[in-house]
Amino acid sequence: MTESELIERYFRQGGAAREDVVLGIGDDAALLRVPADTELVLTTDALIEGRHFLAGAPARSLGHRALAVNLSDIAAMGATPAWALLSLNLPSVDDAWLRDFADAFGALAREHRVALVGGNLGRGPLSITVELAGLVPTGQALRRGGGRVGDLLYVSGTPGDATQGLAIALAGAQQLTGSAGDDAAYLQGRLEFPTARVALGQALRGLATACIDVSDGLYTDAQRLLQASGCGARVEIERLPLSPALRRCAGAGAWRIALRGGEDYELCFTAPPSAAAQIDAVAVRTGQPVTSIGTLTADAGMTLRSGDAVIQFSADGFDHFRD
Amino acid sequence: MTESELIERYFRQGGAAREDVVLGIGDDAALLRVPADTELVLTTDALIEGRHFLAGAPARSLGHRALAVNLSDIAAMGATPAWALLSLNLPSVDDAWLRDFADAFGALAREHRVALVGGNLGRGPLSITVELAGLVPTGQALRRGGGRVGDLLYVSGTPGDATQGLAIALAGAQQLTGSAGDDAAYLQGRLEFPTARVALGQALRGLATACIDVSDGLYTDAQRLLQASGCGARVEIERLPLSPALRRCAGAGAWRIALRGGEDYELCFTAPPSAAAQIDAVAVRTGQPVTSIGTLTADAGMTLRSGDAVIQFSADGFDHFRD
Repeated sequence: MTESELIERYFRQGGAAREDVVLGIGDDAALLRVPADTELVLTTDALIEGRHFLAGAPARSLGHRALAVNLSDIAAMGATPAWALLSLNLPSVDDAWLRDFADAFGALAREHRVALVGGNLGRGPLSITVELAGLVPTGQALRRGGGRVGDLLYVSGTPGDATQGLAIALAGAQQLTGSAGDDAAYLQGRLEFPTARVALGQALRGLATACIDVSDGLYTDAQRLLQASGCGARVEIERLPLSPALRRCAGAGAWRIALRGGEDYELCFTAPPSAAAQIDAVAVRTGQPVTSIGTLTADAGMTLRSGDAVIQFSADGFDHFRD
Repeated sequence: MTESELIERYFRQGGAAREDVVLGIGDDAALLRVPADTELVLTTDALIEGRHFLAGAPARSLGHRALAVNLSDIAAMGATPAWALLSLNLPSVDDAWLRDFADAFGALAREHRVALVGGNLGRGPLSITVELAGLVPTGQALRRGGGRVGDLLYVSGTPGDATQGLAIALAGAQQLTGSAGDDAAYLQGRLEFPTARVALGQALRGLATACIDVSDGLYTDAQRLLQASGCGARVEIERLPLSPALRRCAGAGAWRIALRGGEDYELCFTAPPSAAAQIDAVAVRTGQPVTSIGTLTADAGMTLRSGDAVIQFSADGFDHFRD
């Protein structure tokens, strides 16, 4: 099959149908209509075998994750995703793999009304790059730099689950049975099928003062938000939202995994205490729980506390180029 | 160095400064302003080692080509490039390589007023994916499907040069001296530093009835245009624009190389004979020569003629997935 035939078979009908797509897959580029009073939001993120996923990772997971990691960036801006491009490098053509990949990608795209409007297929070591465009009302995007001293620091979901899921996968713990097996399945599910907090991000516009998506670990990404905001934070480790499965698997060290984490695709954001009730209401309305874990301070850096004690912690989040 | 530090050092200042960039590199996504009465144009193209370039290809060439191949798609729509995202997977950090790559990418970006607004760096087998966004007045984009019977079929530049340059590189002909060395240098230059016909594409709006960029070979890409337009074409092989260097290197077979080609990044387009004088004026004004090579016919397919004789030719353009 040619590249065109593969695209026709697996991808042309994959995403959502949108009226603002003037021209989608099949010409030299896509043509799209951007509404007035709207800013365009552009992001790209890639999954590379051996770096972001293990060789042999399920195609369904990769199709989902490739889009989800980009949806998470759009969510962190408080924007609405709209149009995606997909660049897929494959070592060979495997029909079952392509069908699973395209099914999962398409299902998540349709869930978020994302149209797949272009891209390319090439032969090479497996890697997946998605570019996602979104829309946000002019001037209303969430940014990293808006946090203020006294704001509460929030995180969505239960960070650390994906990291624990990866540890389980690496340990080959698929043979676990009973409740241990249930926990393992849950944690690996958080790694393989992360949930981008798109509805939450949109609902936080006008409420959150700053926002970042948690992809390299809560500690690392929160520090990025704090640095951009010119603040520090005091975080209560007892307040870290830990899933029951992570608690059971990791015991007393669970909070360290939650902070170090990675591949969470949660949102970390700040808001003044006066907005706390509205934030809670947003969490209920979107079905995406959030937890306030600390307070922004004038002193730089993040101080971890357990009761009155200051806890020492060093967690370099994942970085591709740090040795 | 971390990914952030590498981006800071090599890429943050690389592209053009544009007033419509509300937020560039450094947050979860870029924020951009799209003018009213304008459609957004989105494309992506990737370069993979061993597929699109030989191992050890010069970093300057890769930095240039990675952007040029996307500029060519934007050019084929008659659009104006605006914002780029860059996803770069590197096996290791090589300062000299990164500096050369970023210099060449940045120089071409500034030449076309393209801002680099985001992307990511990862470790993996060398591959380069660029996503490029452009702008075009609403309803005025060039497409593949507008050619009509009786239109003239045009191509810009001198196709085949890049393919011959690749053949020379593969044959290790760098040792050529004198005029043969000059020809080799010219042809390899067409491979390593293609010229995207952006000014030409824009000037063809309102004149050309259909347009496609020639990346997989003139014969293959012209057929795509013809198929989308529901036409065929009669092409005079004596009219094919051949560079003096290609003529000297390839002799009587030069026209076959020009048709089969690949990596040309020229524009192939159609226009009614009544527009011929204006097309010629556009070529002069933009400094991007064009040649009419044939006429669109009601019969499907492309017929090649030399005088009164019909020439048999079969040229499958490059396709990553055709065995």
